Amino acid sequence: MAPSQAPKYLTGDGTAINEFLDKFDTFLLDCDGVLWSGDHLFPGIAETIQLLRSKGKRTVFVTNNSTKSRAEYLKKFESKGIPGSVDDVFGSAYSAAIYISRILALPAPKNKVFVLGEAGIETELRSEGVSFVGGTDPTFRRDITEADFAGLADGSLLDPDVGVVLAGLDFHVNYLKLATAYQYLARGARFLATNTDSTLPMNHGFFPGAGSVLVPLSNMTKQQPLALGKPSQAMMDAVEGKFHLDRARTCMIGDRLDTDIKFGIEGKLGGTLAVLTGVSKKADWEAEGAVAVPAYYVDKLSDLA
Amino acid sequence: MAPSQAPKYLTGDGTAINEFLDKFDTFLLDCDGVLWSGDHLFPGIAETIQLLRSKGKRTVFVTNNSTKSRAEYLKKFESKGIPGSVDDVFGSAYSAAIYISRILALPAPKNKVFVLGEAGIETELRSEGVSFVGGTDPTFRRDITEADFAGLADGSLLDPDVGVVLAGLDFHVNYLKLATAYQYLARGARFLATNTDSTLPMNHGFFPGAGSVLVPLSNMTKQQPLALGKPSQAMMDAVEGKFHLDRARTCMIGDRLDTDIKFGIEGKLGGTLAVLTGVSKKADWEAEGAVAVPAYYVDKLSDLA
Repeated sequence: MAPSQAPKYLTGDGTAINEFLDKFDTFLLDCDGVLWSGDHLFPGIAETIQLLRSKGKRTVFVTNNSTKSRAEYLKKFESKGIPGSVDDVFGSAYSAAIYISRILALPAPKNKVFVLGEAGIETELRSEGVSFVGGTDPTFRRDITEADFAGLADGSLLDPDVGVVLAGLDFHVNYLKLATAYQYLARGARFLATNTDSTLPMNHGFFPGAGSVLVPLSNMTKQQPLALGKPSQAMMDAVEGKFHLDRARTCMIGDRLDTDIKFGIEGKLGGTLAVLTGVSKKADWEAEGAVAVPAYYVDKLSDLA
Repeated sequence: MAPSQAPKYLTGDGTAINEFLDKFDTFLLDCDGVLWSGDHLFPGIAETIQLLRSKGKRTVFVTNNSTKSRAEYLKKFESKGIPGSVDDVFGSAYSAAIYISRILALPAPKNKVFVLGEAGIETELRSEGVSFVGGTDPTFRRDITEADFAGLADGSLLDPDVGVVLAGLDFHVNYLKLATAYQYLARGARFLATNTDSTLPMNHGFFPGAGSVLVPLSNMTKQQPLALGKPSQAMMDAVEGKFHLDRARTCMIGDRLDTDIKFGIEGKLGGTLAVLTGVSKKADWEAEGAVAVPAYYVDKLSDLA
């Protein structure tokens, strides 16, 4: 799966960087840990994106973070000095919404989605015309009561039209939401996830990621969700379908071997580039049985500029 | 580990029941799924306990539910018509408190406990003189803020004296608590759990158990907690030490193969009795590779009376 040779180190090697850039027309870029950590933009990122675009490269931001919709992501890019359009962003919430509406396409009425997650998921589901409950509904942002225990156990509090549980990062996760999502799964709802990243890099530290928010449901049901974010190839197929990209002339740039680099390798892209500003370190791909080995690496993305 | 023969079915067989009762002096009884489901006491339970005691048997209630202290449990028993004393109850919160204070016995000052759990854990830690933070503190019962992300990542919001994270069932689990517990673990705190039951039987349904509330921490750290509840033999040792019981003349009664029955078999008790009013069903021990096979079983505990 991984290339047999060691990844090429590009930092400080102008000739190697130019050869690298010449090989690709499209760069798929992860965001958290590559461009920024939480709200902290890394230095030189806006200039690097501008340089890539000035050389005629297409830049697509492919993120597993489902808390923001594409439109909200775009606002964040613009506030950081990186102009763009909604179509430059491809998030796991959007990927999940497309999967539910166009591929799963459950027949009505049992096609409603129970959302464990934030507004980004809701916005993308709405954009695809998918009905949902849960999510940011304040009804679920409270302590569980005796009446909830009774009504969830006997099903009287459940929406009979829910056929899918879609879970992602939820900063408002609580016992009531987990108990409700479990009841839908126990009654046969499909189990989908925007992504299963165990951690979320923020403020140079790690916080619970979508995969850790939803893992109680896996632990209770002994089922794994179908994940629609990286490294799922369902997401790669959706990206390719939308952007009509030539995989051989496309490079995935990311900080995580188990999501970004694996996503690029399994998608048979022309190349993968790891940056060391996020989760994975050099020792991770040098270790025996590494989950994925990038073709190239730099200390930080701005080393390309 | 499991006995090679099929378990003996006692329901409706008076002679077999008398032979069974004659073999034991002490019965360790699980509560949820054996005596009751949530607040619903099963019929005939009070009479059955009374019968056992009238025959000179000692009854000890051994529960993995850490939300109540022994004193609170006692109140529940009394409200259900089952008189007793605090010493008739042995809970996982108490087991964990004893482990922390007497066995782990970390040197001050780095011996404080961060609690992910309810008041039962706090009461038992207090009874053993263990300092703690978290738990039911209202400071942690709120949404995470930008300031929390910053202060948790740089450690400024953390208590430098915390050396242990103790996790159990928490009906008020939220993102802030999980993020805080993770930061302590990432900085080297010991990871303990009152128990790791994946589900909690309530109102004839299933809800997230302690093991599902804390599994985000295992998912993030790739560490498993040391569990102090059933089937951990740390709990059996504590029960034996407290009650000076003769293991050969002791029988464990429970509804779960993976906690109760395993606990009794690994503890080399004289017998184990499964009841079918909770989680595990007959098919579970008849299946290939069953986690544990009881020596006896009844449809419901009151079949002994």
